[in-house]
Amino acid sequence: MSMDHLRSAYEEQLKDMYSAEKQLTEALPRLAKGAASQDLKQAFEQHLQATERHFNTIGQLLSQMGVNPGNKKCKGMEGLVEEASEVLKEKGDADARDAALIGAAQKAEHYEIATYGTLCAWAETLGENEAAKKLRTLLEEERQADTLLTQIAEGHLNRQAAR
Amino acid sequence: MSMDHLRSAYEEQLKDMYSAEKQLTEALPRLAKGAASQDLKQAFEQHLQATERHFNTIGQLLSQMGVNPGNKKCKGMEGLVEEASEVLKEKGDADARDAALIGAAQKAEHYEIATYGTLCAWAETLGENEAAKKLRTLLEEERQADTLLTQIAEGHLNRQAAR
Repeated sequence: MSMDHLRSAYEEQLKDMYSAEKQLTEALPRLAKGAASQDLKQAFEQHLQATERHFNTIGQLLSQMGVNPGNKKCKGMEGLVEEASEVLKEKGDADARDAALIGAAQKAEHYEIATYGTLCAWAETLGENEAAKKLRTLLEEERQADTLLTQIAEGHLNRQAAR
Repeated sequence: MSMDHLRSAYEEQLKDMYSAEKQLTEALPRLAKGAASQDLKQAFEQHLQATERHFNTIGQLLSQMGVNPGNKKCKGMEGLVEEASEVLKEKGDADARDAALIGAAQKAEHYEIATYGTLCAWAETLGENEAAKKLRTLLEEERQADTLLTQIAEGHLNRQAAR
């Protein structure tokens, strides 16, 4: 692939996020199943629904541009999912494990916050205003998911895990 | 490893960041060398200095706790560095490549923002107030590095890459 113009970077990043969101749709059910706390389980289930919508939105954006998403696996998300899988394998206190699961999930959220932030800026620069608007909605939803996880951690889980 | 208490999660995450910062100290010189734009090159070089300090701070925190950092490689950062390495291999327009390099570097910044955010919250909950203070400084420095990259991208690089 040759990076001749911001547009090629933009297309590559959209393909990357197509794979990243896909990987997350596969990982979130395992996180929901592995979470002990009811509110955390629910947060992961809710975020699965959002992630499925995000995956479809990215697919539509690529399709409107006539770009095939391909099947290149997003390396960044692959590593983050591996980290979460390692936490899922650990034994021990249910609250400490949940707190660690939140930590792992927030890394994935921040991966998406960084990438959607970049994609929004690029779409605006390229004059892709409709796409920029959609990407900004996805960015806001990732930020909300991240905030909800912080609230669960700081609301009760961290304290319970430190008893 | 058994996760019996928030303290075990905290120690594991510090070890993870020890490896993550180490990997970044190795990747940033390559990013600085690969960047075409002078201000981006400088931003990577500056951030290398901060990253070396962060690596030492994490090492000190672990040492004060009597915890051996071990040599487990942080999977999350490994994937993010691989993504940046892929951009470095690409040919094409220098500005588009620089814009893509910024995108890749911001993913690494956000990995650190997420992790230091978690570590700060955990240190506070565990009553590790001195450590929490140090970790908050690292978090702020990562946020500043991320903001600087946004300024370079939106200041000129994105527009130049879209010409």
